[in-house]
Amino acid sequence: MPLHRAGDHTVVFPNRPRILESAAVVGPKEGRGPHAEGFDLVLEDALFGQESYEQAEHAMFQEACERCLKKAGIEKEQVQALLGGDLLNQIMAASLAARELSIPFLGLYGACSTMAESLILGSMLVDGGYASPVLCAAGSHYCTAERQYRFPLEYGNQRTPAAQWTVTGVGACLLTEEGAALAHVTHATVGQVIDMGVRDANNMGAAMASAAADTLSRHFLDTGRKPGDYDRVITGDLGRVGADILHELMAERGYPLLEGQYMDCGLSIFHKEDDVHAGGSGCGCSASILSAAILPKLKSGAWRRVLFMATGALLSPTVSQQGETIPGVAHAVALEGGEN
Amino acid sequence: MPLHRAGDHTVVFPNRPRILESAAVVGPKEGRGPHAEGFDLVLEDALFGQESYEQAEHAMFQEACERCLKKAGIEKEQVQALLGGDLLNQIMAASLAARELSIPFLGLYGACSTMAESLILGSMLVDGGYASPVLCAAGSHYCTAERQYRFPLEYGNQRTPAAQWTVTGVGACLLTEEGAALAHVTHATVGQVIDMGVRDANNMGAAMASAAADTLSRHFLDTGRKPGDYDRVITGDLGRVGADILHELMAERGYPLLEGQYMDCGLSIFHKEDDVHAGGSGCGCSASILSAAILPKLKSGAWRRVLFMATGALLSPTVSQQGETIPGVAHAVALEGGEN
Repeated sequence: MPLHRAGDHTVVFPNRPRILESAAVVGPKEGRGPHAEGFDLVLEDALFGQESYEQAEHAMFQEACERCLKKAGIEKEQVQALLGGDLLNQIMAASLAARELSIPFLGLYGACSTMAESLILGSMLVDGGYASPVLCAAGSHYCTAERQYRFPLEYGNQRTPAAQWTVTGVGACLLTEEGAALAHVTHATVGQVIDMGVRDANNMGAAMASAAADTLSRHFLDTGRKPGDYDRVITGDLGRVGADILHELMAERGYPLLEGQYMDCGLSIFHKEDDVHAGGSGCGCSASILSAAILPKLKSGAWRRVLFMATGALLSPTVSQQGETIPGVAHAVALEGGEN
Repeated sequence: MPLHRAGDHTVVFPNRPRILESAAVVGPKEGRGPHAEGFDLVLEDALFGQESYEQAEHAMFQEACERCLKKAGIEKEQVQALLGGDLLNQIMAASLAARELSIPFLGLYGACSTMAESLILGSMLVDGGYASPVLCAAGSHYCTAERQYRFPLEYGNQRTPAAQWTVTGVGACLLTEEGAALAHVTHATVGQVIDMGVRDANNMGAAMASAAADTLSRHFLDTGRKPGDYDRVITGDLGRVGADILHELMAERGYPLLEGQYMDCGLSIFHKEDDVHAGGSGCGCSASILSAAILPKLKSGAWRRVLFMATGALLSPTVSQQGETIPGVAHAVALEGGEN
């Protein structure tokens, strides 16, 4: 049986799984950003009526999934699998949401690359005929991520210029084999874990840029496509530092990214005057921007084809404290507008 | 397109993906257990020549993957995906192993159900023609898990009668679409997250038993099979407490498990006199026993068909400290001997 693949690292989906619907729930700061109108719910308070930020993160995850299903007119009992994760230890936001939703659950961890990872695996489930519909989701919360990975907010630590602001947000997509789609998933390039020796937990962009360049250049090599074949080449959360490095690396590799055609979710989710330093980050950054700003453009036909590549810094305080460096990973998904 | 499914929760693999080879690397205590001869490497010291137990866990993960590939005669450059995880925060053992192996990596977290989760997703990748060969692996380490989930070993905490002993071990399986197989993967039942309100981090068996019963009875309902249709119905790490509850629940649901036909990896990995209280646990428990004691029986024909169901307690200190209960999840995989 010939494999549904192009090159060494890229999967081609013969049945072009559909993203039927999506939803995004974000915090107040994200809700004041440039994509405010694309979000389905903007929280008035990052606690979302809960007693802790961890509980709020779980409630947001559940809310995004439920809103996505409601928009699609699908009952949760019909959903055959939920694939997703978050940044909390033991992906507890996703796990507790799965408990409340009672949907068969496959937990994922790809740090901030999780939204792309869930779309890749979800697309394989749908394309191969193993499950449909399938819900894919990822999220993060500024207050829980800072406490877990760096310092509790109460400590008042001063942020460095390279630091990014973890997005408080969850994005969810419903994948199906049929129906009027926002977009189709046509290709997926699964990334390798790449480590450039970065040890600074406040410079995630540098830790991820090489993995992003690796996956991106493999995608172009495998498919024979060039950056210009996409209306947008979109990275998850490289931020200012990581995006600059990515541009250099891609130019070196013969695939220069074009101005106006490259987009980083982390650089687009907040206004510059929001004091987020190098930009937004977190699983919820690319996941919520996918729903709020990317899928609508594909649906409307404004964009015909994009490459969505979520980027993850595989940071863990447990091993960082032992002197380990921070590896990165990036997974890319090619999306085409619903009418293509 | 009709889905490859039986009932609401079970996938049927038309191409019967093959487990071509497997390997298990375990700690000294596991190496003194009843399955000593089935392991590929028994460490003399749980530090495995590293400076910390976390680093040892990462090195074991890598070692198990490399040994599996070597036994199969496959180079790591040929492997199209590595799916796996562990119990460390941010699944760092698997992530760092993926970095060293340079295999495209999809990180999973299903607590101690991870080996079954990786087999399910890996089988979909192979069966659907998206990747082959695919490496599936899961592992845990007693010393890192105790520190992370309960108390550092140096504290000398007294263990309760319901406590289980996290296995120091990693198991890896290589899945392919062709070749002389140890076993075929024929069905998969993806579990829901079930919470019975257990709050005791020293009673994982009770936290997992309801999820195990749920997945198991759904599997029988979906496939029309009965426990007696399997040579063994095998759970991951319910231990004495969890296994007793599972027997009660399955009898209530009309699928009584038969004596001599039910096996729990956690109850079989250590000798009774090893003072492990309710039995072994951890991702590495079911993963290493799968390689050391289950696949060899399927290969030899001693067993024709088994149901391998890894069970996970979705425990996280982060949310447990906020009063959350411990949900459970269980995923089941039907395996048939290579000659079937």
